[in-house]
Amino acid sequence: MRRATIRQEGDETMSKKWVYLFEEGDQSMRQLLGGKGANLAEMSKMDLPVPAGFTITTEACIEYTRLGGKLPEGLMDQVREAMTKVEGQMNRSFGAVVDPLLVSVRSGAAVSMPGMMDTILNLGLNRQTLLGLADATNNPRFAYDANRRFIMMFGDVVLDIAKTRFEKVLSEHKKRLGVKLDTQVGSAAMQEVCNDYLALVLKETGAGFPGDPWKQLEMAIEAVFKSWNNERAFTYRKRERISDDLGTAVNVQAMVYGNLGNDSGTGVAFTRDPATGEHKLYGEYLMNAQGEDVVAGVRTPHPISDLRAQSAALYEEFDAIGRGLERHFRDMMDLEFTIERGRLWILQCRVGKRTGAAAVRMAVEMVDEGLIDRNEAIRRVHPSQLDQLLHPRLDPQAMHDEGVRPLVTGIAASPGAAVGKIVFSADDAERLGKAGEPVILVREETSPDDVHGMLEAKGILTARGGKTSHAAVVARGFGIPCVAGCESLEIDEEAQEIHARGETFKAGDWMTLDGSDGRIYGGQIPLIPPEVTGWFGRLMGWCDEVRELEVRTNADNARDARQAVEFGAQGIGLCRTEHMFFETDRLPIVREMILAEAEDKRLAALNKLQSVQQDDFEELFEVLEGRPVTIRLLDPPLHEFLPSYPELLQQVTELKLANNVLQGRALGAVLAEREKLLHAVESMRESNPMLGLRGVRLSLMFPGIVEMQTRAIYRAACKVARRGVPVNPEVMVPLVGHVNELKIIRARVIEIAEEAIGEQRCDIAIRVGTMIEVPRAALTAHEIAQEADFFSFGTNDLTQMTFGVSRDDAEGAFLQAYVERKILPANPFESIDIAGIGRLMRFAVTEGRQARPGLKCGICGEHGGEPASIAFCHELGLNYVSCSPFRVPVARLAAAQAALDGPRGGASAAALPKPEPQAKPARSRAKKAS
Amino acid sequence: MRRATIRQEGDETMSKKWVYLFEEGDQSMRQLLGGKGANLAEMSKMDLPVPAGFTITTEACIEYTRLGGKLPEGLMDQVREAMTKVEGQMNRSFGAVVDPLLVSVRSGAAVSMPGMMDTILNLGLNRQTLLGLADATNNPRFAYDANRRFIMMFGDVVLDIAKTRFEKVLSEHKKRLGVKLDTQVGSAAMQEVCNDYLALVLKETGAGFPGDPWKQLEMAIEAVFKSWNNERAFTYRKRERISDDLGTAVNVQAMVYGNLGNDSGTGVAFTRDPATGEHKLYGEYLMNAQGEDVVAGVRTPHPISDLRAQSAALYEEFDAIGRGLERHFRDMMDLEFTIERGRLWILQCRVGKRTGAAAVRMAVEMVDEGLIDRNEAIRRVHPSQLDQLLHPRLDPQAMHDEGVRPLVTGIAASPGAAVGKIVFSADDAERLGKAGEPVILVREETSPDDVHGMLEAKGILTARGGKTSHAAVVARGFGIPCVAGCESLEIDEEAQEIHARGETFKAGDWMTLDGSDGRIYGGQIPLIPPEVTGWFGRLMGWCDEVRELEVRTNADNARDARQAVEFGAQGIGLCRTEHMFFETDRLPIVREMILAEAEDKRLAALNKLQSVQQDDFEELFEVLEGRPVTIRLLDPPLHEFLPSYPELLQQVTELKLANNVLQGRALGAVLAEREKLLHAVESMRESNPMLGLRGVRLSLMFPGIVEMQTRAIYRAACKVARRGVPVNPEVMVPLVGHVNELKIIRARVIEIAEEAIGEQRCDIAIRVGTMIEVPRAALTAHEIAQEADFFSFGTNDLTQMTFGVSRDDAEGAFLQAYVERKILPANPFESIDIAGIGRLMRFAVTEGRQARPGLKCGICGEHGGEPASIAFCHELGLNYVSCSPFRVPVARLAAAQAALDGPRGGASAAALPKPEPQAKPARSRAKKAS
Repeated sequence: MRRATIRQEGDETMSKKWVYLFEEGDQSMRQLLGGKGANLAEMSKMDLPVPAGFTITTEACIEYTRLGGKLPEGLMDQVREAMTKVEGQMNRSFGAVVDPLLVSVRSGAAVSMPGMMDTILNLGLNRQTLLGLADATNNPRFAYDANRRFIMMFGDVVLDIAKTRFEKVLSEHKKRLGVKLDTQVGSAAMQEVCNDYLALVLKETGAGFPGDPWKQLEMAIEAVFKSWNNERAFTYRKRERISDDLGTAVNVQAMVYGNLGNDSGTGVAFTRDPATGEHKLYGEYLMNAQGEDVVAGVRTPHPISDLRAQSAALYEEFDAIGRGLERHFRDMMDLEFTIERGRLWILQCRVGKRTGAAAVRMAVEMVDEGLIDRNEAIRRVHPSQLDQLLHPRLDPQAMHDEGVRPLVTGIAASPGAAVGKIVFSADDAERLGKAGEPVILVREETSPDDVHGMLEAKGILTARGGKTSHAAVVARGFGIPCVAGCESLEIDEEAQEIHARGETFKAGDWMTLDGSDGRIYGGQIPLIPPEVTGWFGRLMGWCDEVRELEVRTNADNARDARQAVEFGAQGIGLCRTEHMFFETDRLPIVREMILAEAEDKRLAALNKLQSVQQDDFEELFEVLEGRPVTIRLLDPPLHEFLPSYPELLQQVTELKLANNVLQGRALGAVLAEREKLLHAVESMRESNPMLGLRGVRLSLMFPGIVEMQTRAIYRAACKVARRGVPVNPEVMVPLVGHVNELKIIRARVIEIAEEAIGEQRCDIAIRVGTMIEVPRAALTAHEIAQEADFFSFGTNDLTQMTFGVSRDDAEGAFLQAYVERKILPANPFESIDIAGIGRLMRFAVTEGRQARPGLKCGICGEHGGEPASIAFCHELGLNYVSCSPFRVPVARLAAAQAALDGPRGGASAAALPKPEPQAKPARSRAKKAS
Repeated sequence: MRRATIRQEGDETMSKKWVYLFEEGDQSMRQLLGGKGANLAEMSKMDLPVPAGFTITTEACIEYTRLGGKLPEGLMDQVREAMTKVEGQMNRSFGAVVDPLLVSVRSGAAVSMPGMMDTILNLGLNRQTLLGLADATNNPRFAYDANRRFIMMFGDVVLDIAKTRFEKVLSEHKKRLGVKLDTQVGSAAMQEVCNDYLALVLKETGAGFPGDPWKQLEMAIEAVFKSWNNERAFTYRKRERISDDLGTAVNVQAMVYGNLGNDSGTGVAFTRDPATGEHKLYGEYLMNAQGEDVVAGVRTPHPISDLRAQSAALYEEFDAIGRGLERHFRDMMDLEFTIERGRLWILQCRVGKRTGAAAVRMAVEMVDEGLIDRNEAIRRVHPSQLDQLLHPRLDPQAMHDEGVRPLVTGIAASPGAAVGKIVFSADDAERLGKAGEPVILVREETSPDDVHGMLEAKGILTARGGKTSHAAVVARGFGIPCVAGCESLEIDEEAQEIHARGETFKAGDWMTLDGSDGRIYGGQIPLIPPEVTGWFGRLMGWCDEVRELEVRTNADNARDARQAVEFGAQGIGLCRTEHMFFETDRLPIVREMILAEAEDKRLAALNKLQSVQQDDFEELFEVLEGRPVTIRLLDPPLHEFLPSYPELLQQVTELKLANNVLQGRALGAVLAEREKLLHAVESMRESNPMLGLRGVRLSLMFPGIVEMQTRAIYRAACKVARRGVPVNPEVMVPLVGHVNELKIIRARVIEIAEEAIGEQRCDIAIRVGTMIEVPRAALTAHEIAQEADFFSFGTNDLTQMTFGVSRDDAEGAFLQAYVERKILPANPFESIDIAGIGRLMRFAVTEGRQARPGLKCGICGEHGGEPASIAFCHELGLNYVSCSPFRVPVARLAAAQAALDGPRGGASAAALPKPEPQAKPARSRAKKAS
């Protein structure tokens, strides 16, 4: 650095600081030192007992790459210099024959990245130092074992000799010795193993294993740098959109050992319980052991609380360190530690992963403890973590204890777990369900005819269809767990049997399914109920104070609406009236209406529907108590309410043949009736029903339906209002593409609403808005806004049309492949495609509000419950998002985070941080401890 | 006007000039005087012998409406003043007992408008003036007849007594007299008729017929004003988007009579032949007659050329007037004239309507004559008029002579007329057609299996399907006349019979159809061949000099391509490779490829296809001789190449039942094969195929197809190039929605193309572009442009997706109703929806060219041949339009007109003038002459 004033081309490289002792860095230097290095530095700075070491910077890696695979000049000099300091601190010498200093070499990028070289332990061992280690530890077997591991790791990651080759050598020795465990291989035998390892290296590389510790170190550093550019890392970064220019750091740290006797040990711990969030040290340790012993699974680790009994002082020290780290990092920490001959060393620390329940509890309690503020608490929970809390879950303890394994796996179609007795028909499901029996409805696939049974089932299982199949959509709508498209299940509906993996289940047998991960289990597994606890409630309350987006719900019946209001919904953003039509008692009337040949019959059917629809709306208004209720006029094509065409065609073909042979009069009558129905269905068939006669087009061609619905809405509203309950209906016109469509229907709705309100002498505001789901509507928003009291983005259809993709057809046919092959960055039906659909939305909001200042805009597509989409909606300046009841808390949290993170109505969309992967049970995590 | 300096509120009304003598106005005053009034004024100004008169302005009408149905103050004073001048000029007095002046009163808005009050003749007659007229003409019967007509017309339009009431009175008299014709009713009897008419008026109105000529005039003027606001006019204006604020003028003109003896006469004439365009007076006249005599059809009018023999002086005078008017108006004029006692009067003139052929010839000859310049000639022909010229037409003369009437009418699906023998199967059509027999292929509806027969038919007739049915699309593609959806036709394909209107046609019977108007005729009607004459060629040449848009064609085979090149196409803008797949000899190979279970079988099928595709492309390149050939990679979903699902389902259902009963081994095998096929088709079914697995998605999922096609294209190109013929292939990727789709396929195409070119050692430019037909592609044009050598707007699909409308499903279900009810201003599949789709296109062009300056942009949807859409494309700054071969001349003309009329790349779209309605044969037009 001193030479900086006179440096020339290339001088920078030479003069640059490539190596930082731990005590030279800190937490803020993640980019330069990597995550691991920065945390080690921070702990050093905190004077925690971290084994001494240093970090080679990411810049050195970048320079290595730039130089085409050459270590920057001066680097190894700086390494030597740093090593001298480490030697001083540890009071051992690297490469010394007496009590030698050994080191670990680990990669450590700024973002954690699988596929990179991981760890080399015990580096520095050779024929001489090995003896020194044996002497110093007074444990030759330990020394040979350490050497064996070192040769293998070095051979594997530096010399590119497959680990299995080494393992084979070891197992041959064990075979020869007639032992099963590594620990049973004695000192002498272990020495032979080492010799064979070295022979293997010689054979494979043509050169001997490097004996010079410095050479070892240099080669290990290069290996880490190379692994930054290996195929796997490159692919991973490309997929995760991590820049190739970041580089990785290398951490070189003095080795300490937990297996030097009964006053040594090793373990891993969290400063709070990562499963429940409880504020207590949580973890496991083993005395006289090292990480691999735990992996071998021979000995069972002890809970960390046992350490207190073993050594109160050590426990206190460790606990104090944990508390200190929490205060320092203001979060729950995950620590790896080693006790070497009674002395505690912290090898590594990082922010700990946690379950959703734990995340919520920790966040709230840390606010109470003054560790973080409320905004930080809101940021601490990822919206996706809430989902677990809101549905029944399989009890992980019970599953572990009993060693339960899933029978088969289908598509996770509606979250939550369910246990029940198998039934094969909707009727059985309804009958038993109403009688209080928990049932799982199992079907090839479901149809509108099954809805009454689905409603009474605890869970739904189908062999066909995906996340958008009828079963999935209805199940999500009703919050019923569902596994769909479980194709390896053979369902024999006639015989009332399921065959799977050679097992047979009959009607009435118990079955458990988990709609969150698509797994199916035979028998009963205990469930954990939803945890909408106090912590959850408090966090939600803070979210509500912060967020600017209103959160509504998509609900078609009082049950869902009630659930959503409990979850904090501020209104209904989408009530799909057709779902009311599909119910068992209504479907026949709907069909009557559709098939009526005479106008009076059609009217009679409409009148019947009007009265049931009015009841539906009354219930909704009662539940919502004055919150807005956005009711969408009938949307789907009418043929959706009729039997399926292929089914009818088959029936008629069969009946015709039978009739030709048998000529029965009754048969003839059935044939005639079926034929008539077939012709009706045939005449209504559409080649692309999504783009056919539906939505507002239906209302324009069959005004009777919208008239009926409007009357039902406002009569219901008046009736409820007169009971003293405030009401706030909003009528929403679907599928508008041209302003004139809306203009005509709006006028008609207002006319009829005024009539109804007039009759009932009520005072209810009439609001008529429109879905923005046809691209043209967005493109002509300035015109449409003039006829709309509000816009509600129907991003499902908007995405389908703007992308030209029919979700039902595409998901399996190419969309999945597109996402896998990264042709699309994400499935646009899961998260709003901001570049395309988002652009159209921005266009519509901007121009809509230019034409009608203050125009209320919301979203009611499935995206309304997806965090990244919610962030976009916030940035876009929408007034509300609407989502299914179980997504309401998710949306409240996501909206709050968006409000904290991004500007509103600004220029480009802010990206939400990526979700943290789910924490695994502590049990399996402990295996990684060294 | 003098009082203008001191006028106050309301003064303007009083001081305003409401009435213009003919000589006070001119041609430029259409808004104020209406079309008729302005032309009468202009003729007066030219000193032509126009009966004197005056025009009451449209402003008077507006004021009348504003005042709630009161004539503006001062208006009648001005009328009286003007009448005095007319009296002076005609040397007769209005209301005088001796030789009274009678007038006609006619409405005349700036735009012609049906539903408005038309004409009252002979106004001014009453008990006294009647006698004066009888005296002056020395013809009492003439006077009574004139009076009878006046009472009826006045009664009808002013007093609102239905015309039929009057006609009934007259026919009762004729019955009484035992005569058939009006002319047989003598003077005395006619007097009685008049009396009975007056009695009818008294009875109906409760008041007598107004005797005062001034009262009559005032009432007539008011009636014209009222008719501006009647229901019919109002509706008409709303539909035609004519402002209600324009008002109508009233023309009051002195009566002259053509039925005062053999030196009198009346007629109508065009300054050139409106059917052929030949430069000679063309028209008809009758001596001693008035318009109504021609209507009665008793006497046959003489051709205008006969007038020369009758009176050379009159003919010369008339001819001179005609020539003068042409010079003055610089266009072919349509004149109404009357000869009163040897004196020629011109009653009315207007620009004459004409056929397409006449329009072209006149335009070109007028340039030669120096009457107009070339740009004006281009403007004179409406693109829609060209269509007639390019297809065989039914000979109107022959149809008239033989009194041919259409049997039934279907949907005009592909223009042109055809005569042939009926066949009921594609195989028959192919067999007979190839043997040189002209055949009409008659089918319920057609399918891909029929294409080989359709190709050999002179015309195609189907009972089902509309303008976008398979039959229609294929027929238009091949330029074969087609009438589709002729539902009143009962086709019995088994019995090989057609039943229509009680008639039966068998296979082999002659039939004639006109695909331009959808009419079907039994028997043979002579055809007129296309008239691509010298005038046409010259006009097209001028267009080519002016236009800035390149015109390409959509052609899938050499035949079409050749036709299009003859019509002036500058390249192929869209070659749909799937049409090649549908041909009889290829379909089985395509099916083989799709259904192949093993990869080697699929490859074998692909190889077979590659060789036939290569042949196709060679032919195209040969024909195009270096003009660009844009080849679209396979687009439709693969299931389109397989048999229909319902058909297979029926087959399998029947076979199953049969097999259950019969258990035949052969039957079992057939069943198994069909079932396998059914399952294949079933697995490929899509609920919305338009938005499913097609276009680039196919290429990504089944790369073998695009590889095969690319190889075929570039091998063909090399082969042709080596023969010394220049080639210019462009590969177009359909249905791109995300840039990554294009990126991958483009790279693959380039790779294979380079391979093929390298093998053949050729030098051919590789260009890969994309359709812009998915809304998202337009919205992300800046990204997509980076991977595209060109954009081609596929406005069919772009419209379908942006509107969310499946054309096939919508046309009958609601789109037609939408257009009729004016919910949409026009069918967006016929003319580009500028507000919506156009906006998206502008977006794409602008951003595409920002990303890639000079990006070539074209359009290849059906809109590419529609004049208003072409004007929009010009304004948008596209490089080319592409349309079906027969639309190429239309596009050349429309592009030239757009270049003359509108700026390029500017702000808003220029609207083309509305097409003139087609001229009717002169025969029927003459009936309107008075």
